[in-house]
Amino acid sequence: MRINIPETDQERIVIIGGGFAGFNLARKLARSPYQIVLIDRNNFHQFQPLFYQVAMAGLEPSSILFPLRKSFHRYNNVYIRVAEVENIDLEKRHLKTSLGVCNFDHLVIATGADTNFFGNEKIAERAFPMKSVSDALYLRNTILNDYEIALSTRDYDARQGLIDIVIVGGGPTGVEVAGALAEMRKNVLPKDYPELDCSEIDIYLIQSPPQLLKGMSEEASAKALEFLTGLGVKVILNNRVVDFDGEFVHMKDGTKIQSRKVIWAAGVTGSLVPGMPETSIARGNRLKVDRFCQVEGVDRIYAIGDIAYMEEEVYPEGHPQVAQVAIQQAKLLAENLKNKAAGKALLPFSYHDLGSMATIGRRLAVVDLPKWKFQGTFAWFVWLFVHLFSIIGSRNRLIVFINWVWNYAFYDQTLRLIIRTKAPWKKRNVES
Amino acid sequence: MRINIPETDQERIVIIGGGFAGFNLARKLARSPYQIVLIDRNNFHQFQPLFYQVAMAGLEPSSILFPLRKSFHRYNNVYIRVAEVENIDLEKRHLKTSLGVCNFDHLVIATGADTNFFGNEKIAERAFPMKSVSDALYLRNTILNDYEIALSTRDYDARQGLIDIVIVGGGPTGVEVAGALAEMRKNVLPKDYPELDCSEIDIYLIQSPPQLLKGMSEEASAKALEFLTGLGVKVILNNRVVDFDGEFVHMKDGTKIQSRKVIWAAGVTGSLVPGMPETSIARGNRLKVDRFCQVEGVDRIYAIGDIAYMEEEVYPEGHPQVAQVAIQQAKLLAENLKNKAAGKALLPFSYHDLGSMATIGRRLAVVDLPKWKFQGTFAWFVWLFVHLFSIIGSRNRLIVFINWVWNYAFYDQTLRLIIRTKAPWKKRNVES
Repeated sequence: MRINIPETDQERIVIIGGGFAGFNLARKLARSPYQIVLIDRNNFHQFQPLFYQVAMAGLEPSSILFPLRKSFHRYNNVYIRVAEVENIDLEKRHLKTSLGVCNFDHLVIATGADTNFFGNEKIAERAFPMKSVSDALYLRNTILNDYEIALSTRDYDARQGLIDIVIVGGGPTGVEVAGALAEMRKNVLPKDYPELDCSEIDIYLIQSPPQLLKGMSEEASAKALEFLTGLGVKVILNNRVVDFDGEFVHMKDGTKIQSRKVIWAAGVTGSLVPGMPETSIARGNRLKVDRFCQVEGVDRIYAIGDIAYMEEEVYPEGHPQVAQVAIQQAKLLAENLKNKAAGKALLPFSYHDLGSMATIGRRLAVVDLPKWKFQGTFAWFVWLFVHLFSIIGSRNRLIVFINWVWNYAFYDQTLRLIIRTKAPWKKRNVES
Repeated sequence: MRINIPETDQERIVIIGGGFAGFNLARKLARSPYQIVLIDRNNFHQFQPLFYQVAMAGLEPSSILFPLRKSFHRYNNVYIRVAEVENIDLEKRHLKTSLGVCNFDHLVIATGADTNFFGNEKIAERAFPMKSVSDALYLRNTILNDYEIALSTRDYDARQGLIDIVIVGGGPTGVEVAGALAEMRKNVLPKDYPELDCSEIDIYLIQSPPQLLKGMSEEASAKALEFLTGLGVKVILNNRVVDFDGEFVHMKDGTKIQSRKVIWAAGVTGSLVPGMPETSIARGNRLKVDRFCQVEGVDRIYAIGDIAYMEEEVYPEGHPQVAQVAIQQAKLLAENLKNKAAGKALLPFSYHDLGSMATIGRRLAVVDLPKWKFQGTFAWFVWLFVHLFSIIGSRNRLIVFINWVWNYAFYDQTLRLIIRTKAPWKKRNVES
């Protein structure tokens, strides 16, 4: 079956993935001479940097999601399809998707990256990833539900297993989750669960390198450690989780921690779509691309964002897998595709690092700008401001702003709701 | 196993259900001389009158939910337990719950009512109920997902099955869902799905009595019909759905309608907890209570809200199952329980009908007050105002207000997101 999209005189660009890379590319190519097909398994764009706030009951998922269709109301050359891509056929130049076969003239792979469990099946099965709003919501529900069960659990060890949390990975996500949990333990839980002894709740953050926020400055790493320790998070550096049996987390040095909840933010691996040649796959399951985001060895196939591996003079081991790279690559590729259509020369990509930041708690954040590094209250306001203005949709921005002001003023994450979707998601097959 | 709640000198009142009846009763009994145990299967109170807006992507579930724990921060005689009640043992005067056995001195049954499928298993299995936010979210996801699939469905009949919707029951919920769907078809869908012919979308509202909004005034019924017809809803009166095979809705008069989605708002039945004597059960699975909300024939067992069946001079067939009755009964029962503790006389219940209302669409609502009936724009503003101020929590009120202003100004339900909870809800057994 062919996918139901009109064949026109326009060359067709198919974009797989509506994340920072794919979404921005589609926006920039709207009103271009191409026909654009944007395929994602969800009908929304996700603002990944705030997943942790959804997990911590500070924001509703909808505030950081944006419906894809709404973004392209005014562009009649953009077609959105909510589908799974099953494989790429480079010879026939088409994709197999859950909605049928989709041919392309140009293909942009912007599938991003997924959680890397480093091959440990037991961890993959039991730990909580943080790579989608669904993951975040599921974690939120489990944390809240476990506190409820803990209230009725008289046995000390069993109760510890329910209330203690182990976070693996000291990058921005790990640090932000640990900080938010510590704030919740301090400000919200004693009011919600006066029957629990909140001092019994242990929050562990485990990081195998000797510093937190690897990739940021030494000052940022040191301050993040200081802030987290000040909030009572047990930070364990230079150690690694080797196993998790559902009851105990086993560390490389032989020690173990009793906890039923392990949040896994320890690494990512490229979300490859089957069908790409082995030779184009680089370290971390990323696709090797040249400076024009063109996948090496295949014609008119591009990769941008977390899935792309591009070597630059200053980045001999590839770019960091962050939103800024994705956004900048989307912008350049859009330019180049338009240049191509107009018969103009193509421009090579070079990454402009605008800096990086992470938030730890109330008035506690760390910011590294290219020429200025600062931490604390001002950094926190900068973090809030930058994130607020990066969210897509003015309604979303307003709702997030209100939630933040509210949480700040009342020391309260108000969304402590365990919402279950009642019926299982039924897949309906209509046409075959 | 006993539930983990301290035994004190206080008499214990156990309330089953945190809806309008149970939630308001617990609030009024906080700071009373009793120990209060509030048991609900969810950790939140739900504002049922706006479920339909959640289903129609106009509001987020969290805006109409309120965390139970937050409501009782300041009261140390109130214990909240998120649990299922399995049965009532009247002799031993205790409940069996999923968290263990809970004894009581007084028991208040406020379990409300659930969807009544009138014994038709096939309908129960396939139709969409509207009695919880989970139901509403599931319906929202299905409607949106079906539009996505419809885009790729070339066969006309199969496509009709996906986009047409049948609503059964012309009470407030049915009327409100039908109206909201019609507004969405007019204002949102043509922009979101320019590839679909939105005039092909049929919305049916089926009601077996000869008028809509039975129980309201003739003017209200007539105007609701006029408003809905004006919005293009196909209203079918004096007819009944007798079967639904997943493809076709079969009517009593032998006709059938092709549709895969049937929203069932045709009636409710009391949510009984096993263990109550047969003799105390009245029509509609409700519990017979006297004018003091005491269940007939059993001592210190009360029922309030939708589950209670009380005959009054003016209501010889029991009260309507609406929020106002629940709230007023909660208030009276709280008074009486306090009077009892103080050795004062008890007061009998009598219902003060404050009026009823329903909304159909933009600036289209019907309002029946005891001495004044009106319809149209002013009624719509009254409806908005009353509902806004009935929502619990000022943050919720603010968020709902913003969403309403937004939707009104931009003709846009912004929450068109298909959010799936990834992992199945895992039940963890910790102590046995």
